Amino acid sequence: MLAPDLVAALKQVSTGTITTVLLKKGIRRSWMRGPKPFAESERIVGEAFTLRFVPAREDLATPESWASPRSTRAAIEEMPAGAVAVADAMGVVEAGIFGDILCARMVRRAVAGLVTDGVMRDAVGVLGTRLPVWSAGVASPPSVSGLTFVGWQEPIGCGGVAVFPGDAIVADGDGAVVIPAALVDDVARLGPEQERFEAWVVAEVEKGEKLPGLYPPNEATRARYEADKRRG
Amino acid sequence: MLAPDLVAALKQVSTGTITTVLLKKGIRRSWMRGPKPFAESERIVGEAFTLRFVPAREDLATPESWASPRSTRAAIEEMPAGAVAVADAMGVVEAGIFGDILCARMVRRAVAGLVTDGVMRDAVGVLGTRLPVWSAGVASPPSVSGLTFVGWQEPIGCGGVAVFPGDAIVADGDGAVVIPAALVDDVARLGPEQERFEAWVVAEVEKGEKLPGLYPPNEATRARYEADKRRG
Amino acid sequence: MLAPDLVAALKQVSTGTITTVLLKKGIRRSWMRGPKPFAESERIVGEAFTLRFVPAREDLATPESWASPRSTRAAIEEMPAGAVAVADAMGVVEAGIFGDILCARMVRRAVAGLVTDGVMRDAVGVLGTRLPVWSAGVASPPSVSGLTFVGWQEPIGCGGVAVFPGDAIVADGDGAVVIPAALVDDVARLGPEQERFEAWVVAEVEKGEKLPGLYPPNEATRARYEADKRRG
Amino acid sequence: MLAPDLVAALKQVSTGTITTVLLKKGIRRSWMRGPKPFAESERIVGEAFTLRFVPAREDLATPESWASPRSTRAAIEEMPAGAVAVADAMGVVEAGIFGDILCARMVRRAVAGLVTDGVMRDAVGVLGTRLPVWSAGVASPPSVSGLTFVGWQEPIGCGGVAVFPGDAIVADGDGAVVIPAALVDDVARLGPEQERFEAWVVAEVEKGEKLPGLYPPNEATRARYEADKRRG
Amino acid sequence: MLAPDLVAALKQVSTGTITTVLLKKGIRRSWMRGPKPFAESERIVGEAFTLRFVPAREDLATPESWASPRSTRAAIEEMPAGAVAVADAMGVVEAGIFGDILCARMVRRAVAGLVTDGVMRDAVGVLGTRLPVWSAGVASPPSVSGLTFVGWQEPIGCGGVAVFPGDAIVADGDGAVVIPAALVDDVARLGPEQERFEAWVVAEVEKGEKLPGLYPPNEATRARYEADKRRG
Amino acid sequence: MLAPDLVAALKQVSTGTITTVLLKKGIRRSWMRGPKPFAESERIVGEAFTLRFVPAREDLATPESWASPRSTRAAIEEMPAGAVAVADAMGVVEAGIFGDILCARMVRRAVAGLVTDGVMRDAVGVLGTRLPVWSAGVASPPSVSGLTFVGWQEPIGCGGVAVFPGDAIVADGDGAVVIPAALVDDVARLGPEQERFEAWVVAEVEKGEKLPGLYPPNEATRARYEADKRRG
Repeated sequence: MLAPDLVAALKQVSTGTITTVLLKKGIRRSWMRGPKPFAESERIVGEAFTLRFVPAREDLATPESWASPRSTRAAIEEMPAGAVAVADAMGVVEAGIFGDILCARMVRRAVAGLVTDGVMRDAVGVLGTRLPVWSAGVASPPSVSGLTFVGWQEPIGCGGVAVFPGDAIVADGDGAVVIPAALVDDVARLGPEQERFEAWVVAEVEKGEKLPGLYPPNEATRARYEADKRRG
Repeated sequence: MLAPDLVAALKQVSTGTITTVLLKKGIRRSWMRGPKPFAESERIVGEAFTLRFVPAREDLATPESWASPRSTRAAIEEMPAGAVAVADAMGVVEAGIFGDILCARMVRRAVAGLVTDGVMRDAVGVLGTRLPVWSAGVASPPSVSGLTFVGWQEPIGCGGVAVFPGDAIVADGDGAVVIPAALVDDVARLGPEQERFEAWVVAEVEKGEKLPGLYPPNEATRARYEADKRRG
Repeated sequence: MLAPDLVAALKQVSTGTITTVLLKKGIRRSWMRGPKPFAESERIVGEAFTLRFVPAREDLATPESWASPRSTRAAIEEMPAGAVAVADAMGVVEAGIFGDILCARMVRRAVAGLVTDGVMRDAVGVLGTRLPVWSAGVASPPSVSGLTFVGWQEPIGCGGVAVFPGDAIVADGDGAVVIPAALVDDVARLGPEQERFEAWVVAEVEKGEKLPGLYPPNEATRARYEADKRRG
Repeated sequence: MLAPDLVAALKQVSTGTITTVLLKKGIRRSWMRGPKPFAESERIVGEAFTLRFVPAREDLATPESWASPRSTRAAIEEMPAGAVAVADAMGVVEAGIFGDILCARMVRRAVAGLVTDGVMRDAVGVLGTRLPVWSAGVASPPSVSGLTFVGWQEPIGCGGVAVFPGDAIVADGDGAVVIPAALVDDVARLGPEQERFEAWVVAEVEKGEKLPGLYPPNEATRARYEADKRRG
Repeated sequence: MLAPDLVAALKQVSTGTITTVLLKKGIRRSWMRGPKPFAESERIVGEAFTLRFVPAREDLATPESWASPRSTRAAIEEMPAGAVAVADAMGVVEAGIFGDILCARMVRRAVAGLVTDGVMRDAVGVLGTRLPVWSAGVASPPSVSGLTFVGWQEPIGCGGVAVFPGDAIVADGDGAVVIPAALVDDVARLGPEQERFEAWVVAEVEKGEKLPGLYPPNEATRARYEADKRRG
Repeated sequence: MLAPDLVAALKQVSTGTITTVLLKKGIRRSWMRGPKPFAESERIVGEAFTLRFVPAREDLATPESWASPRSTRAAIEEMPAGAVAVADAMGVVEAGIFGDILCARMVRRAVAGLVTDGVMRDAVGVLGTRLPVWSAGVASPPSVSGLTFVGWQEPIGCGGVAVFPGDAIVADGDGAVVIPAALVDDVARLGPEQERFEAWVVAEVEKGEKLPGLYPPNEATRARYEADKRRG
């Protein structure tokens, strides 16, 4: 699982900053289209635990299938503490993937959160479990009315982005991003410094500084920032 | 109109549970894509009173048409107390079907609520009337800029679902569902028991029970639940 | 810039009423599809200051481009106090056009607000600046990951509506509308009276009046309204 | 039904010219988004005979429903010779409204053609019947898998346009348009002259004339055209 | 693989008839939204060989990845003669999954055809290979510009339908359908009879028979058909 | 304008190959979503001449506006021989940007072709002019019913891609691509060799070669290709 110091570092970095750092590394596709915060929540960070759905077929997607060994129930029992579950629901918004019962169990297992390009059901119940959730909304129907669950810890797409088991997930008020496993260290190192610099820029703007030359910084600004930083 | 005991029973049943019960009866299309709660509201239940719009045509959809005998105004005067108005706006999101004046009149007539796959206008005013509304959002323009009203109490589509006069409508935080008239009794009978069972499951999960075998229940779980239920 | 008395008059007129007045003048396209209020805010009114983006191309849309003389930074320094910035982001929802730093600078320059058919980034930071914003949501990625900025004060499209420099913009809880420059006087004159009439109608409805004959008003209603108005 | 001389006149007028004539009369919504010619066909003209579908519901939309008295079969038996059937399928593209059998019967009844914002099924069979069809494509599934037929000769929407029984329909290579009943005479009178003028303009362009001043014509061009016309 | 007699039987059955037979068995989701015939072709029938893509990520989806052991090239070498390759491209239409080279190899391996909810590239070259293809169109860019290939013979979604290895695929002018493995025998048995009956109905319509009572058949019609069938 | 030898070289290179070459240079966005060939045509190559539309507004987009000095007519008179006109119609498919008259004039001016993410009107007439056109389809209504023309030779977006005056445009059966001005030489140099190699690969596949190791080529394949090439 993601090392605790990496988790701690990434908790300080906004998803906005992460996408900027990744862009400089050549990664343009990291933010998922669809998942929005279900409720106000602090930023979550964790290793991706993937879930995969395909469309429903009436002979497969039945309430009875919930008892199958390849069910979402079985997948939840495999989730390690601290993981972020990421569910590929193919953007289907007409069937809720999870409701209060499954979310309550995930909280019990100390899962860090749930991210999906699909939707939840039983909004009130899900909020009651306090599981941090990023989804594309809510719908009443059960997952089987639109989706068939087929497996976990496989490569998936979520919101137009590839997610592999082992990647890191960060989600906050702007949505959810994936950090490719090989780049997690870089982001954890570069992100906090970028946050510090941007906070300094905001303070400068509030003092009345103009943007050109300030952000992005020219050499004079860069020097001034470094001086201020040394001063603390 | 829907008998008071059915209304009372259905008020205890979430739209999520209703879709699950209907699915077991072979009805997969009952939840409307589009209508979201306009404000926090308790669950509403009522018989469907349908409204039908077609696209605007400049020679027909004019502010003058609001005075026509086949107008939304006339339709509102036909709505019985306790009905849920369901408006087929063909998913048009660029013209608000109703604003504060029409909603205020619906409140006066004791209409239970309004559900539409279109949008409202004058969000602040509509909230002020306290009419429970489920819609696909808000827009400034009047209905005539995008829609022509053509009649009421006809079969309609709303959010991808067929609604017939006489069907029952239930709406809550997850959205709005239609119960075919012939299935209302079944849902009113089976729904509350399903709610009771799911509440028991949540409590079990909070005690630390695993999901497989619990939900859906195997025979042991089923027996344990029945025993607990007898005990009260 | 928009004369202060026009600004004051339009602040009394809802976007709903503006679209109705414009419809009577033959203008059906004035409300922008996409921009929603970012936070609760009072109504804003100002002259349009347009910003134009085209899609990103990897050789052009880079963090380095932020320092170019044709940058959003340079555009902000040209915005007059009281203007409403309107950004044509072609409805792209996968890259935030502005974050907290640029919004903070706009507040400093006394810009009245920002309207876009694209999205913002750094939702928390933007809220912190208190700039009134109407957008199609939020996304983490920087503008350059999806957009290239190409100029300001050109004719643009925003949310399916044409906006020209010199037009007036009004935005409130229902969204944002453009008033063609040549019609601003008319709207500022007719709008407040329409608001007064509709408030009177709501009061009548609350007293129990039926809608047919009341709204739209027949001659008797019109006379009664005029009498009440004279009485004050 | 549409008088034979009006049919004859409109057969000379392209749908493009009709939309231009209607635009000058204030009608901007006349062309249907969705219907494309199924096969090459000459232009068709006829009075609209409307068909209305709502979404499927599993208890209603069954193969058995095809035998109901309110079926598409019954509707076809009501279609007068020369009519153009216009079917509101709400833009559903996953269930074919008609196949070869129903089209063959329409040909037998001398129906002029079929226009829909939905799709056909059994493309090869439909082509074999030689019924002129404008649709949004093809799909294998029967109508009942996505649609429920609810009636005929009611006001409908088709491709974003209102169609009323009694309106005229014209369809050609550019698609299908509705002419409001009250404007049919005007279009039949103004359309052919507009066609004649545009043919003359094309000939002028082929002789090397520049567009400014020619199209739209300035006074000199207008005079030159009138002279040529008199000369024959 | 699909037994030769089943293939032969299914070649006589249109995808339209298959969806009708499956609907009667309770399967409403069998037709894939997206795949259209690339060129005129006779009907194809074969066992599904599935291919799965997820979205591109710049660190994974590179021209170099084409040489990876988990590449589309390797998958093609696994395809048995007579199979129909079905590729889940998540409906992405901006990157072609296969071009002439890969199609040429599939022809060499006697693959029966290719079905995808994505698009092809190099339309002219693909046509030249004569591989029967059903896709959602064409695009110039290589798959890696939008897609990452992750595996074969897994459950997939294609055009809103679940496809499992072992299912049967049939594609013709109306598109492509999946027959669940457990229902292939039923469809192969019931389909040809349904085709025979519908051909008889068309002939009856051409003789002037009305539809009500004929299609769906009442008892008299049914008897008449059976008599004609006995007569041959 | 684009040098004749570059035009000649690019005429040998498919848009598919161009996107592959550009991808290797880091450009992932070059193919336009929307433009399809209007008729079979040979590949066209030329320098981009851009046209820009914004949405219609009823006070601006009128048949009278066609005579304005900032009209499409005036723009056409500025187009140099050999240019490819690229029109940003914002993907609007409900109003045709050009019909037969304007296309006929473009042919007269020796324009190489027209590419747009919008649609044409008067399909038959446009085909008659023999102007090579790539568009997103056809529609009857005139441009002014949905669009306002605002200028030419400005940066535009077309089909999700940025196009600048001076870029090169290539269009063929797979659609239309833009080559950034700075990369035209590279593509003209690398493209033909890539075409030659792929033709050799197809021939190898037809001889029975397997794909792994062949395409992309390993060292042995590369050597064999080079040997064959030397042999001619």
